[in-house]
Amino acid sequence: MRKILVIGAGKSTAVLIKYFQDKSISEDLHITIGDISLANAKTLAADHPKTIAITLDVFDQNSRKEAIKNADIIVSMLPARFHIEVAKDCLRLGKSMVTASYVSKEMKELDEEVKKKGLIFMNEIGVDPGIDHMSAMQVIDRIRNQGGKIILFESFTGGLVAPESDTNLWNYKFTWNPRNVVVAGQGGAAEFLQEGAYKYIPYHKLFRRTEFLEVENYGRFEAYANRNSLKYQSIYGLEDILTLYRGTIRRVGFSKAWNIFVQLGMTADDYTLANSEHMSYRDFTNSFLAYSPTDSVELKLRHYLKIDQDDIIWDKLLELDIFNNHKKVGIPNATPAQILQKILMDKWTLNEGDKDMIVMYHKFGYELNGERKQIDATMVSIGEDQKYTSMAKTVGLPVAMATLKILNKEITSTGVQIPITEEVYAPILKELEEYGIIFNEKEREYLGYNPDGVKG
Amino acid sequence: MRKILVIGAGKSTAVLIKYFQDKSISEDLHITIGDISLANAKTLAADHPKTIAITLDVFDQNSRKEAIKNADIIVSMLPARFHIEVAKDCLRLGKSMVTASYVSKEMKELDEEVKKKGLIFMNEIGVDPGIDHMSAMQVIDRIRNQGGKIILFESFTGGLVAPESDTNLWNYKFTWNPRNVVVAGQGGAAEFLQEGAYKYIPYHKLFRRTEFLEVENYGRFEAYANRNSLKYQSIYGLEDILTLYRGTIRRVGFSKAWNIFVQLGMTADDYTLANSEHMSYRDFTNSFLAYSPTDSVELKLRHYLKIDQDDIIWDKLLELDIFNNHKKVGIPNATPAQILQKILMDKWTLNEGDKDMIVMYHKFGYELNGERKQIDATMVSIGEDQKYTSMAKTVGLPVAMATLKILNKEITSTGVQIPITEEVYAPILKELEEYGIIFNEKEREYLGYNPDGVKG
Repeated sequence: MRKILVIGAGKSTAVLIKYFQDKSISEDLHITIGDISLANAKTLAADHPKTIAITLDVFDQNSRKEAIKNADIIVSMLPARFHIEVAKDCLRLGKSMVTASYVSKEMKELDEEVKKKGLIFMNEIGVDPGIDHMSAMQVIDRIRNQGGKIILFESFTGGLVAPESDTNLWNYKFTWNPRNVVVAGQGGAAEFLQEGAYKYIPYHKLFRRTEFLEVENYGRFEAYANRNSLKYQSIYGLEDILTLYRGTIRRVGFSKAWNIFVQLGMTADDYTLANSEHMSYRDFTNSFLAYSPTDSVELKLRHYLKIDQDDIIWDKLLELDIFNNHKKVGIPNATPAQILQKILMDKWTLNEGDKDMIVMYHKFGYELNGERKQIDATMVSIGEDQKYTSMAKTVGLPVAMATLKILNKEITSTGVQIPITEEVYAPILKELEEYGIIFNEKEREYLGYNPDGVKG
Repeated sequence: MRKILVIGAGKSTAVLIKYFQDKSISEDLHITIGDISLANAKTLAADHPKTIAITLDVFDQNSRKEAIKNADIIVSMLPARFHIEVAKDCLRLGKSMVTASYVSKEMKELDEEVKKKGLIFMNEIGVDPGIDHMSAMQVIDRIRNQGGKIILFESFTGGLVAPESDTNLWNYKFTWNPRNVVVAGQGGAAEFLQEGAYKYIPYHKLFRRTEFLEVENYGRFEAYANRNSLKYQSIYGLEDILTLYRGTIRRVGFSKAWNIFVQLGMTADDYTLANSEHMSYRDFTNSFLAYSPTDSVELKLRHYLKIDQDDIIWDKLLELDIFNNHKKVGIPNATPAQILQKILMDKWTLNEGDKDMIVMYHKFGYELNGERKQIDATMVSIGEDQKYTSMAKTVGLPVAMATLKILNKEITSTGVQIPITEEVYAPILKELEEYGIIFNEKEREYLGYNPDGVKG
């Protein structure tokens, strides 16, 4: 019997646990779910005969070590900053581990020791990061093996609401951490490469510099630039690439309306508002507008940001009730972003029965035999319900598959790593297809931003 | 003979030194100028019989202490962050000191000890902070002494170019630290009070929310909000005030054009540009614009920020040569703000013979005997040349006067302080008038933003 310890019984763990449970007989698995809340762990365990739930406080060193010692492999689904404590125990106790989070500096520093002990610390193997790495590297490696040279790589991912549950003017609901959505793009300019030129978009322009994306059967989307596109240059070995861009997908029109919040200053998270607790939503909106004893908050906002009365943006704002004089913020010492998040959660929380959707879109431009070509790869995954969401599937399945393949010694390269080698991505992408996570590849004309080689 | 030590022989010290030298016989003064550059100190000493120049490295503890020990009072004109070392020596050696800088936390913490030793550490006694404190508190105290209640205080200061030297489309030249101009307003929203309502302006809207100011004989100016208006509420004892606003003065039209740089992202100082050293000014501008193989940088910028061909903003941009393909940045690992500063310094540096100008404008709204009234006070000071600039006068004179008045025991209240008490501001404002630094007061109708008491 092989023992798997899953630490953290959060939102994205349901599919992961079910995968292990479904294979518990055939693969001879025993699953332990450890969470600070025993109730959460028990709910996930669901009285399955091969699963036990335990209380696990990651800050209680002894119980943490004891649980890790008893397992053959550890899956950490904790918030990213807590992985390192688990990782250090795994190293001491000689256990491999899997996470869906970005490799932190501290984690990276363990690489040599992890290799020495013959262990595997697999990270960034959820959806983004995760499925994006794997699906991109599979195509990049294939093009290279054919003798092609990658000159363009654009990659977009979005967590959205499924078309059948898309019931508001924003075509958006929170399917993941709302806070990350509210502060998205903050903390520096978005940097990327276009035809060899470095380009920079400051935060306050980010949502006005979107690109359109067309996905077969799902219509048109838009994407705004992520901050960190350039970091993928060395990770994917794309040092000579001309165009490198990563973005976040939304439905068309979201960004233009979201920009209103950015322009007003409602997404700021670096200071708190006076008397925030007792403010109404209307007071909150008004605090970003010039004082006037006579003009309404509505007219001041329209005039300030030049919104016509028949502009759909206006209806989007009304839908969120930001001019309501009765609804109270109720949060003391709140930042603008915290208040905006509360206002949005009133309207953008998934209803019972709502389904989520993950959309991914890669563009690969390359030169082969003197010709410029392009492959577009798209993937759409729709959740089943609010437990088996698309987010839980796309995060949990690759984590679970990697865990089992490490246990089964199908993945054998040691060290602190991410899934960019064929050994890892090939079998996992193949197995993901069984679960409906399928990339649809299309050859198309090379889009290039610069067909004539003009300097711009 | 009374010995004054002036540490730091920077731009603003010329008038300060001359003040002491002119009074060296009548007041029996001996002046020592200490600077890391002996040449700088000597230039300022100018072979005056009662002045000596010495090398003083503020990081060399021994020579610093020695110089302080030999003086009766110390004036620190060093950059603000270096005052604290001087202050600690002054405390140990029992000397009073004067600076023109904001009171730092560390400086404030010395207050009790400074009082115990019967010393005076006078700070914020330049122009802004300094003359603004004194001129404001004089009127505020007068209104209060009459039984009035202050309900509005707005205060604006600007360092500008004098009308006779105003020769560019921006009506602006650098008369002080250029870096502070480029990054002005960054680091959080501007916060202020209007008719009892807290208002917040995010950085990217700061230069579009200006107010106009009319100064007799000098025409119209504009002001954008400072970040820290609210901090003056407790300093000036204005806890019940309805409107509190501090701003920076520019000539009308400056802010609207400056906003172009803000919108592009050229004022950002939190990341560096790839290959900055070898970029042309045109490359720099282009790095903030979308890629295009066909459209010109000029057209892309116009379209992005919606600038008509006959808009004066366009001429302002052309005047700065930001589309020049031959001028190189020449700074490795430069932030956008550093590059923009370089571009501006090409055009905004004072020419020989150019004069600077300080403009200050206060508005005091108050209730007296059931009536609402208002006093506006304005001050304009024009420099003589590039040595005896208005900035050097308005910073140096109050510092020098305070120093002499402390020596002469006309100022006697001890502790770490700023010039907001009558003992300090009354004699200094009076003496400043002899040097042409005169506030022109006008009663006018109470402007109030809310004559009818409407809630907005």
